[in-house]
Amino acid sequence: MDHGSGRGLAGVVAADTVMSHVDGAGGRLVIRGHPVEQLAGYAPYETAASLLLDGFAECGDEASFRTAVGRGRVEAYGRFAGRLRDMPGTLDPVETMRLLLAEIGDSDPLAEPAALIGAAGVAAAMAIRHAGGEPISPPDAAAPHAADLLRLIRGARPDSRESAAFEAYLVTVIDHGFNASTFTARVVASTQAGLPSAVIAALSALKGRLHGGAPGPVLDMLDSIGRPEHAEDWIEARIAAGERIMGFGHRAYRVRDPRADVLRSVLAGLGTVDSGDSDNFAGEGRLAFAGAVEKAALTVLARRKAGRRLDVNVEFYTALLLERLGIPRTGFTAVFAAARSAGWIAHALEQQAEGSLIRPDARYIGPEPLARAG
Amino acid sequence: MDHGSGRGLAGVVAADTVMSHVDGAGGRLVIRGHPVEQLAGYAPYETAASLLLDGFAECGDEASFRTAVGRGRVEAYGRFAGRLRDMPGTLDPVETMRLLLAEIGDSDPLAEPAALIGAAGVAAAMAIRHAGGEPISPPDAAAPHAADLLRLIRGARPDSRESAAFEAYLVTVIDHGFNASTFTARVVASTQAGLPSAVIAALSALKGRLHGGAPGPVLDMLDSIGRPEHAEDWIEARIAAGERIMGFGHRAYRVRDPRADVLRSVLAGLGTVDSGDSDNFAGEGRLAFAGAVEKAALTVLARRKAGRRLDVNVEFYTALLLERLGIPRTGFTAVFAAARSAGWIAHALEQQAEGSLIRPDARYIGPEPLARAG
Repeated sequence: MDHGSGRGLAGVVAADTVMSHVDGAGGRLVIRGHPVEQLAGYAPYETAASLLLDGFAECGDEASFRTAVGRGRVEAYGRFAGRLRDMPGTLDPVETMRLLLAEIGDSDPLAEPAALIGAAGVAAAMAIRHAGGEPISPPDAAAPHAADLLRLIRGARPDSRESAAFEAYLVTVIDHGFNASTFTARVVASTQAGLPSAVIAALSALKGRLHGGAPGPVLDMLDSIGRPEHAEDWIEARIAAGERIMGFGHRAYRVRDPRADVLRSVLAGLGTVDSGDSDNFAGEGRLAFAGAVEKAALTVLARRKAGRRLDVNVEFYTALLLERLGIPRTGFTAVFAAARSAGWIAHALEQQAEGSLIRPDARYIGPEPLARAG
Repeated sequence: MDHGSGRGLAGVVAADTVMSHVDGAGGRLVIRGHPVEQLAGYAPYETAASLLLDGFAECGDEASFRTAVGRGRVEAYGRFAGRLRDMPGTLDPVETMRLLLAEIGDSDPLAEPAALIGAAGVAAAMAIRHAGGEPISPPDAAAPHAADLLRLIRGARPDSRESAAFEAYLVTVIDHGFNASTFTARVVASTQAGLPSAVIAALSALKGRLHGGAPGPVLDMLDSIGRPEHAEDWIEARIAAGERIMGFGHRAYRVRDPRADVLRSVLAGLGTVDSGDSDNFAGEGRLAFAGAVEKAALTVLARRKAGRRLDVNVEFYTALLLERLGIPRTGFTAVFAAARSAGWIAHALEQQAEGSLIRPDARYIGPEPLARAG
């Protein structure tokens, strides 16, 4: 019997995949043959999704796949709209998204890959609008997925630079090896359960604070720091107190997370919102402020955690980019889930095709039964 | 980097556990120190559940834990009742159960272990009644969990022998190592997501036909065989066609599944329903008929699969027992989920306490990026 190399199956290969290669030592992310920096900002989301699905699902040509995703948005909207009326008030947006997607059984027409990607996007948008107490407009089946989702989430049509930036974000995070949610999708799919089951389970894993929970808190940290000149002291105090600094470090990467660079350049290309206040670190000074926080964090981390390489991660620039696009921070994880849905579905199909049930061993360390007296 | 011993992490230890020990070579199942045959039929379900939870959740004494489970049933019933009115018609009972449980967020009062066990039971009962187009009566908070669930599922009060038999079933299958649904619950909990997330994800894994799907088909097989004297030819023909025989063989056990023996003796103790027709293999002749099918299957399997040990498994006698208790076969997997909910929750709590994220490695076998022309 093998014993996993480390806790949590660290270093144990659970399966082969053609989907993505997280090269943690090299700081490289390859998505089905394409370095992430050559895919994000170049390929529409639908193209990146069908790249992942190729050979595992019938995608048709680019136009018909895009139409199928758009029809999924519209069909899901019709299905979910009635549900939003009497939702429990205690659910967070990812939980609301899960409740909406739980309407879809494994043999539903919406369980088809393209339709389910559309449905996941609409569920995210509806959950975010619902959390804000705002109504949502119907999707536009003919629009590109990214532009349509951003419009639904904001309740207003974005300009083309904003849509492009949002699309670059969706593609940047579309897949990333066997993170906990993707691995969950694969375990579920390994029983030959259907795609909605894989996606609902993956969403459930994403909820945990060790997984999908950090981009919102990055902004909370910036709020708490307040001004660039406070950054170093603030971070120093948190590290001294043994706390984790949000947006820094990643289990997989020993060097810089390549996605952080992609998102930073997307963000820089967007320019700032002119708030008319040069000392406004929430407005046009935001990116410079964030840069100062990043620099301060790296300085403090290098001093206090000299043995470890802790660099800025994807969540730091995700937070800034999604904020710049007008998405409320409580909705960041739901948007991430919408982006990652294509990866989850592709991995689920790959695992179903591989054919074996994922069933590791447990080592029992509980009590042994009492021997019978005798 | 380690590579898993076999496909699907077979033989790889994913974590330590005190919950249960599946001794496949010895044909033994130990549930937190108790052999399954000394727990089922002796301990009430609530006692078995609090045995698993001990040290991981506050259970209080036996009476207060039972009350907490009962209150969970009542509270969940109130929460779910409105939802059943406009459910999509396309969901199977496990999917309906998932949709109901998706009402419960991770910070809901119903997310407490005892309440969530109660809620899972009620969700199963409501889903089964809903699938049959039948109304459901309210739970009785003061009743034992097993007796109350059987009453809700059947729509009529069971006698005490039936309740005891159902309770023995629930305890028999309460936990069983790292099967795919329990492992899913642990992966989700490893992100520090909450208990409803772990249970909803586990349900999603249970849906797959390689996992929770066999007890219903066992009865379909008996229907198809029809009479004891047809069993051997029927099974011979299926094996010759390369089909799997439902209710035989188990990935973990090299010898007889100890749970099958427990359930067979529970069933024998229940006696038969007197249908007044001695040639009625659906009535009083049922157990003898099933015994003849078991014998025929073992004869054929020994002849055709001489190298493999394929014995009757837990699903064979689960099917007969749940049928005898008047539960429709389409509801078997939902009932199983209700029983297993305590195991899922206990494993989720154990994994949360262990503290590490489950995140195995992937081996990328997709294309490498093209080198830039130089």
